[in-house]
Amino acid sequence: MSIEQYIHSVGQQARAASRAMARADSNAKNSALRAIAAAIRREASVLVAANREDLAAAIAAGLEPALLDRLTLSEKGIAAMAEGVEQVAALDDPVGEVSGLKFRPSGIQVGRMRVPLGVVGIIYEARPNVTADAAALCLKSGNAAILRGGSEAIRSNRAIAALVHEGLASAGLPPSAVQVIDTTDRAAVGHLITMREYVDVIVPRGGKGLISRLLAESRVPMIQHLDGNCHVYVDDQADPEKALQIIENAKTQRYGTCNTAESLLLARSVAADLLPLIGAMLTERGVELRGCPETLAIVTTAWPASEEDYASEYLAPIISVKVVAGLDEAIEHINAYGSHHTDAIVSENYTAAMRFLREVDSASVMVNASTRFADGFEYGLGAEIGISTDKIHARGPVGLEGLTCQKWIVLGNGEVRA
Amino acid sequence: MSIEQYIHSVGQQARAASRAMARADSNAKNSALRAIAAAIRREASVLVAANREDLAAAIAAGLEPALLDRLTLSEKGIAAMAEGVEQVAALDDPVGEVSGLKFRPSGIQVGRMRVPLGVVGIIYEARPNVTADAAALCLKSGNAAILRGGSEAIRSNRAIAALVHEGLASAGLPPSAVQVIDTTDRAAVGHLITMREYVDVIVPRGGKGLISRLLAESRVPMIQHLDGNCHVYVDDQADPEKALQIIENAKTQRYGTCNTAESLLLARSVAADLLPLIGAMLTERGVELRGCPETLAIVTTAWPASEEDYASEYLAPIISVKVVAGLDEAIEHINAYGSHHTDAIVSENYTAAMRFLREVDSASVMVNASTRFADGFEYGLGAEIGISTDKIHARGPVGLEGLTCQKWIVLGNGEVRA
Repeated sequence: MSIEQYIHSVGQQARAASRAMARADSNAKNSALRAIAAAIRREASVLVAANREDLAAAIAAGLEPALLDRLTLSEKGIAAMAEGVEQVAALDDPVGEVSGLKFRPSGIQVGRMRVPLGVVGIIYEARPNVTADAAALCLKSGNAAILRGGSEAIRSNRAIAALVHEGLASAGLPPSAVQVIDTTDRAAVGHLITMREYVDVIVPRGGKGLISRLLAESRVPMIQHLDGNCHVYVDDQADPEKALQIIENAKTQRYGTCNTAESLLLARSVAADLLPLIGAMLTERGVELRGCPETLAIVTTAWPASEEDYASEYLAPIISVKVVAGLDEAIEHINAYGSHHTDAIVSENYTAAMRFLREVDSASVMVNASTRFADGFEYGLGAEIGISTDKIHARGPVGLEGLTCQKWIVLGNGEVRA
Repeated sequence: MSIEQYIHSVGQQARAASRAMARADSNAKNSALRAIAAAIRREASVLVAANREDLAAAIAAGLEPALLDRLTLSEKGIAAMAEGVEQVAALDDPVGEVSGLKFRPSGIQVGRMRVPLGVVGIIYEARPNVTADAAALCLKSGNAAILRGGSEAIRSNRAIAALVHEGLASAGLPPSAVQVIDTTDRAAVGHLITMREYVDVIVPRGGKGLISRLLAESRVPMIQHLDGNCHVYVDDQADPEKALQIIENAKTQRYGTCNTAESLLLARSVAADLLPLIGAMLTERGVELRGCPETLAIVTTAWPASEEDYASEYLAPIISVKVVAGLDEAIEHINAYGSHHTDAIVSENYTAAMRFLREVDSASVMVNASTRFADGFEYGLGAEIGISTDKIHARGPVGLEGLTCQKWIVLGNGEVRA
């Protein structure tokens, strides 16, 4: 069987399984999830052993320490994985919800019913915990999943998949509802992202490099996340205390997350008073400031910022800083240089806050809150398959609902169109 | 300026205009729409004259009569166009609606705000009325539009665009919020559908050929409509009267529309009683039946159906017919051969109706109603930019809401993440 034939047969089986998953009731899905969690706990030593083989091969291949760290499945990580699957079981089932059912003048009733997307392809790097996590979210939302993890994790992923299959079968659901692509051949991805007949959506989870590559070649719609170049704008009427707190949290709580602030804008009227405090706070925490000439005049430890700095997602203890005339320039700057991920204003002014909310073209816009809140758990979604920086279908944190769509339902009594 | 530079400058202007449109209030948008309608009425003779030039060129080029008919703008058609724009003005503004705003344990309030998509590219064939129609829908939903109509209609489209620009300017909105691509160079489309930085979504309106071509090359998300291979399934417990009425309307009311029934399925238990009546009714109306062997045994005027027939959107007085064992086979057949557009069951059985609604994987699923109801106006959307057979973002008839998305808003009081 060629790689193309193999991926097509995976797609075909996923499509068939997606039909059964779409009609599975909540009980069956939850019982499968609880069985998977139990199997993960029971077989922890088998998972560790499989993972050790992956690690040995990765070490032999000279993988970087950071990647080895992501690849590692500890006993603790396995327990967390099982717990995550149980948490998904506890969430409300999004499938079947009917909304807006209304009578029309013709006599028919028209409404919408929430249904699974069908087949979800998930492409990720060498983090074996994503296998259980993604499988659980797709299962709960009534989808079939095709999982393609990094080739370094293939033994771990295979071992997890076996437990997922066991859980599905125990609840009377088709094991092929969750398939791990069992080849390290890179051509598999190319086939997966172009099989429109079998795959309804692709969710890539990984770095920007992976996603740009997929975006260039995919023929299947994608829910994807590119940069997180998030801004905090301190407005004329900002509360200085809130500004300091929010900037500290947004920039320094974690440097490597996509909702970390990478750029700070200040209204000119408050720059002279606030920038010295902000600059001192950030410098003390080891954050390098890269600023406009006005910033440099106020914060002597800052370095000059280039155009590129304002468009950068550093993922590091660096922040770009710009003094702006006010709200208009701030909004314009964010829409031009930002990545439409998450941006916050600090202001006590009602009109400025309302305009910022409406006019900043980002997936999450915030007033007087840290950008770090842009997260499925913080938003109350209960789980997160990813964060979308696109505008179609889903924006921002994507939970179970993002793995569903709404079809129209029409209830009639023999009506025909006039 | 090369064609690529031209299209990029159109995109750049559209992006800039989209910012102004996103913050335009309902009054400004409605006043622009009413001014456009008034200008269309006032300049009817100018539009007719421009259209005559298009028609003369099209006749000289040997265009088919059906295409000439679509290209023609009559005085009556112009009045209808103006009325359509006024109807859009009368619809509720979808922009700015906030939903689900709730406090979270962290203290922040999280909700969603409906906002325009941004820049919408619409690609259509030589129907000048689409220019006014699409412009009105994009304008009302706060988007900027880039319109690329068939080259045969370029003079008509230019004349309509001038009136749209006049209306926008009169309301203080940027004329570049609606741009008609002013070249017949086919390379324009290739650039339009790959400009991810300037175009947020492409809506193709036209035949299957156009759409498959765009689908193969587009790098921008599309809201598109492929086939409408719609089914009526007559269940074991169908009311015979309703079945006959619905089949007559679904198949014979109009042959060329996407929501016309193209395939009829009958439960074996009712075939012997109902097929003779249905066959006689359809034959009397000049509809050719193409059936399975069981159908042929009952309806002697029917022709044998091939596999291809069951997958066909005839857009003609032909219908494929198949006798099935019951609900399960019907659902399986529809999901395998259908186009996920619109499918109906005729049944008095509650469980059969509920299963059909849930398990048929189509944009519209109906119980005891004609498939011809699948339409934005019939569903109460007030207007329709198209019908989507895709699952991502919008399914089925797409109205103003389909031209918007929801961003997350967070209202805080200085909260930071723990």
